[in-house]
Amino acid sequence: MRRGSLSKPLAALAWALLFALQAGAQTPATALPSWNDGEARSHIVEFVRAVTDSKGKDYVAPADRIAVFDNDGTLWSEQPLYVQFVFMLEQLKAAAPRHPEWKNNAAFKALAAQDKVALAKLGQKPVLELLGEANSGMTVGEYDRTIREWLKTAKHPKYQKPYTELVYKPMQELLEYLKANGFRNFIVSGGAVEFMRPWAEAAYGIPPERVIGSQQDVKFEMKDGKPVLTRQPKFAFVDDGPGKPVGIYRHIGKRPIAAFGNSDGDLQMLQVTTAGEGRRLGLIVHHDDGTRETEYDRQSHIGKLDKALDAAMANHWIVVSMKSDWKRVFAFEK
Amino acid sequence: MRRGSLSKPLAALAWALLFALQAGAQTPATALPSWNDGEARSHIVEFVRAVTDSKGKDYVAPADRIAVFDNDGTLWSEQPLYVQFVFMLEQLKAAAPRHPEWKNNAAFKALAAQDKVALAKLGQKPVLELLGEANSGMTVGEYDRTIREWLKTAKHPKYQKPYTELVYKPMQELLEYLKANGFRNFIVSGGAVEFMRPWAEAAYGIPPERVIGSQQDVKFEMKDGKPVLTRQPKFAFVDDGPGKPVGIYRHIGKRPIAAFGNSDGDLQMLQVTTAGEGRRLGLIVHHDDGTRETEYDRQSHIGKLDKALDAAMANHWIVVSMKSDWKRVFAFEK
Repeated sequence: MRRGSLSKPLAALAWALLFALQAGAQTPATALPSWNDGEARSHIVEFVRAVTDSKGKDYVAPADRIAVFDNDGTLWSEQPLYVQFVFMLEQLKAAAPRHPEWKNNAAFKALAAQDKVALAKLGQKPVLELLGEANSGMTVGEYDRTIREWLKTAKHPKYQKPYTELVYKPMQELLEYLKANGFRNFIVSGGAVEFMRPWAEAAYGIPPERVIGSQQDVKFEMKDGKPVLTRQPKFAFVDDGPGKPVGIYRHIGKRPIAAFGNSDGDLQMLQVTTAGEGRRLGLIVHHDDGTRETEYDRQSHIGKLDKALDAAMANHWIVVSMKSDWKRVFAFEK
Repeated sequence: MRRGSLSKPLAALAWALLFALQAGAQTPATALPSWNDGEARSHIVEFVRAVTDSKGKDYVAPADRIAVFDNDGTLWSEQPLYVQFVFMLEQLKAAAPRHPEWKNNAAFKALAAQDKVALAKLGQKPVLELLGEANSGMTVGEYDRTIREWLKTAKHPKYQKPYTELVYKPMQELLEYLKANGFRNFIVSGGAVEFMRPWAEAAYGIPPERVIGSQQDVKFEMKDGKPVLTRQPKFAFVDDGPGKPVGIYRHIGKRPIAAFGNSDGDLQMLQVTTAGEGRRLGLIVHHDDGTRETEYDRQSHIGKLDKALDAAMANHWIVVSMKSDWKRVFAFEK
């Protein structure tokens, strides 16, 4: 960009003013208001201070300030069932008459019965594949509308709120805090990208191109003289467990310096992130609040946290207690 | 972000100042200085004016201002051979002793002989697959270093300049102009992402996560107790022709409003972009300057422009004449 001789110092002044205002709005003392004073909060604040201090030994240039967040159970609720599974169940029921062969499909039976034990044993892949068959042939635009329509009316069985209100307020603040400090935040989820992109920007300030997730195949076709992308039954990529660092590499092409998760599906993402050189942050949200949310970890069929909890101890990742570290869980709480 | 009662108007003032400075720096009259006054330049400027005019009927919110650029032949030179192919050739020669079976491989023979006719017939896929075999087993970090080292010393045979200086100055200005007007620019290339990400930010102002390209498979592994990603022989995705809109959908999840290409490999990307509702921009860089660069189109084995040139006429995409629309091609020209 070419600037005149007068406008250069004016621009510098404007940036300095903005920076000062931004920094002032999020001092260590006022940042993360829904977090209790405690080890978790102070670890986060200290990490951010260290990597943004241009004179310190842990300084990280803005270009490299990349943070990755799991979605289900880390940024919003995943109990009693992944929200996407609830949506899929309706989709599958609607498509079932066209697929008599599903009667003997293990994933379909488990979903129809909401059999969490069976679903946990199957893992995400066969369930995603089944959904792939159900919506195969739709254009990506048609599928997008289906999801948006569903999200408008569907409600969580316990809270009786739209699912998009079940995002964790303290995590929203954390996303905002990192962004204000020059970070680029990405979602890295085992769920399908199409299911997150319609609402991630409003809920998390994360635009569609920063949402990484499992990917159903799509194909370019000419349909009635118009170019369209139609959905194919096969999944092109499952972004879970060891797939997460692969998805990060493919999509971002850089190693993040901070990773946030809540289950064993986030283990490898946390390992790769925190194995990098220089200061790193690994954080696990521990669901220990049975009153305001749901209490679960090592034995859970959804969001099982077992190996990653051991790894957290061994690697000094922050383990956030929802019960004691968070003043509130959801924005709608009083 | 929480702001005090005093800082809100100050921030608004600072943003207004910045905006005014930015707009002032890139008025329609001063923007794109390396472009001659003509239809191409005025079409671009008018498009940008229309989509950024918040009171006009063609207004597009900043969130939807997405522009996609092919790389080879659109942003930098692709003659006499895709730069990546030159790099690959050296990689393959180095790996050849470990792969006696390549002697009978059509892609290897064509590359070794720099047989452009054969390479054009084969297309990108078998060539990429061969490279995949050559660097399989390397960690992504090792491979990245190999590319960076090569780029430091390799020189273009005609210009005797590092390849990264062979970017088109008018296109750099166009990227900057769009960015200044609230666009998010992405590269969408048939080449492998790893080969572009190390230099795309310096050359084009495009960070690694906005580079979409062909993708070799990588795998998460523990190696000597450390988590690494190692390269696999198979290609996971070829981002060319009908693959480009697929890559855009997977990566961005939104339809761009402007697309820039130079060959038949960009046809589907241009079709999908310009088929969207509202004001759209399609642009093709036509290599008609045999003096400052290379003259080629319908008959070329590299960067063949045939179907997309017909489509440009039919769809009113801008066809840029490098010869008459550009004051200069490269920054190093006098």
